[in-house]
Amino acid sequence: MPQMNRRIVLASRPQGQVSLDNFRLEEAPLAELRDGRFLVRNIYLSVDPYMRGRMNDAKSYATPVALGDVMGGGTVGEVVESKHDGFAVGDKVTGMFGWQDYAVSDGAGVRKIDDTRVPLTAYLGVAGMPGVTAWYGLNKIIAPRAGQTIVVSAASGAVGSVVGQLAKLAGCRAVGVAGGAEKCRYVVEELGFDACVDYKAGKLYEDLKAATPDGVDGYFENVGGEVFDATLSRMNPFGRIAVCGMIAGYDGQPVPLKQPSIILTMRLLVQGFIITEHLDVWPEALRTLASLVAQQKLRYRESIVEGLDHAPDALIGLLRGKNFGKQFVKIA
Amino acid sequence: MPQMNRRIVLASRPQGQVSLDNFRLEEAPLAELRDGRFLVRNIYLSVDPYMRGRMNDAKSYATPVALGDVMGGGTVGEVVESKHDGFAVGDKVTGMFGWQDYAVSDGAGVRKIDDTRVPLTAYLGVAGMPGVTAWYGLNKIIAPRAGQTIVVSAASGAVGSVVGQLAKLAGCRAVGVAGGAEKCRYVVEELGFDACVDYKAGKLYEDLKAATPDGVDGYFENVGGEVFDATLSRMNPFGRIAVCGMIAGYDGQPVPLKQPSIILTMRLLVQGFIITEHLDVWPEALRTLASLVAQQKLRYRESIVEGLDHAPDALIGLLRGKNFGKQFVKIA
Repeated sequence: MPQMNRRIVLASRPQGQVSLDNFRLEEAPLAELRDGRFLVRNIYLSVDPYMRGRMNDAKSYATPVALGDVMGGGTVGEVVESKHDGFAVGDKVTGMFGWQDYAVSDGAGVRKIDDTRVPLTAYLGVAGMPGVTAWYGLNKIIAPRAGQTIVVSAASGAVGSVVGQLAKLAGCRAVGVAGGAEKCRYVVEELGFDACVDYKAGKLYEDLKAATPDGVDGYFENVGGEVFDATLSRMNPFGRIAVCGMIAGYDGQPVPLKQPSIILTMRLLVQGFIITEHLDVWPEALRTLASLVAQQKLRYRESIVEGLDHAPDALIGLLRGKNFGKQFVKIA
Repeated sequence: MPQMNRRIVLASRPQGQVSLDNFRLEEAPLAELRDGRFLVRNIYLSVDPYMRGRMNDAKSYATPVALGDVMGGGTVGEVVESKHDGFAVGDKVTGMFGWQDYAVSDGAGVRKIDDTRVPLTAYLGVAGMPGVTAWYGLNKIIAPRAGQTIVVSAASGAVGSVVGQLAKLAGCRAVGVAGGAEKCRYVVEELGFDACVDYKAGKLYEDLKAATPDGVDGYFENVGGEVFDATLSRMNPFGRIAVCGMIAGYDGQPVPLKQPSIILTMRLLVQGFIITEHLDVWPEALRTLASLVAQQKLRYRESIVEGLDHAPDALIGLLRGKNFGKQFVKIA
């Protein structure tokens, strides 16, 4: 059994943009394993936009990470020692063990996973929380009918890529918004969206209008800011907007919505949601998503950084739109 | 039978604020009554905020009034001549006959009303479209539970006053927002709200915070602008916002929403609606509202201007918040 655990803790709260000195790598001894517990060696850490919110000490949906605490987050790993009847050495598991090499668990919130048909990392992505997030927002809030037009921002990302592919499987027109020609090409050519608008090309509204000739019936909001404004202007009457992320505002400055009156004039439904509050849908969603992955009907791309000490870089890059696909840190 | 009809038509579309020269009073001959028709003498015209939207030639929920057409709007009146089996001379009716002395109808969209227990004007207010609007937004979107806090803007107005009183009848804490000490006193002392915040007093957020110590569970949005911003900051998780009006933006300039990310962080539902698209609820709502009026459980105030030629003034005053209670023009 290992004696020491390396972990990354929150050293200070960001003032505006996150920087490396908000984090600290430290080592701490591992206590002896008690009965009813098991020890997990984390293999992959998930890096997600919501982590920015938890670094603030503000009224929010996410409990803030306390100063000096391990940065939280989803992980997949392997049981390396066990005094728990339900978990054996060698079991692959996914949980919320955060940015550290090892974690001790009593099994609460931990799920055993099968990596024979679905790769380990998929359980943190398309067949994990991001996938369930996409599934919920699309099916439970947007509830599209075949033939409708669905727009999703951050379309090449972990959530957005699943939203568009599920929309296509439901017979919809799927239009992505992403940053840069390369991401847009990927969204259309590899993920099979009908169109993708490059918000960095300087004519967001015009390009979005051209890509949505029949208007927009459903919008899956991952970004906020100007993409939200542009899409709002394209909404059809009775459109639905699932609000899942507002990266544009995560760095502290609120980003206004320019024309909220469209909510009234187009009689829109706008619904914010946090997927961890809808645990009742997870079994159905996870079953569906894992099955689609195994049948190769859901494609995805991953962005993997190696080494625990690079987790802060990975988060900073993600918040600046530098990743391409679901971001992980491989630590074993 | 009268020979001539006076009417107010849209002479030009407003650039920004509405002015008197956007309207023209004209006279036109009345055609002879055909079989299956009846002639109504309008007694009261309703003046409502939505009329501003119809003066624009813009993509909106409301079909624009064409230049030269009679300004539309709800009316109550009396049948003065009839060649229709369902309507007799002397019948009191409510319909959408607009800003004119007389109108000919085949009965479509016209409802006979009984003014023995409920006054005529109430059918254009608390027991008419504004009342149904309040009933729908509160019961079908906000869906409050006893003990929750409900905020309504334009609280002394035709819709807002009903929202708060229905919220009180449902066991909620009702908090109004209105402009000026006199309106606020009316909202608390006469309508029975628990509190009312004067948005003109210069410390909207602080006053709203003091009036909503347990946060806000439901918000009925009649105004937009800074009141929307302030209330959004007080929303509790899973709060519901019924978006019914955005007067603040009716004059053409879009008014931004400063912190839309609260929709996500508080997992809010924000729903725009137009009451004429929910005709299925009208019979139930009208029955409930008329019964509450007859039992004197719903109080209301009216602002009545005399003379057809003063209808434009009345609308301009309404849009500037000068009316107190439901605005009418008495023309007979």
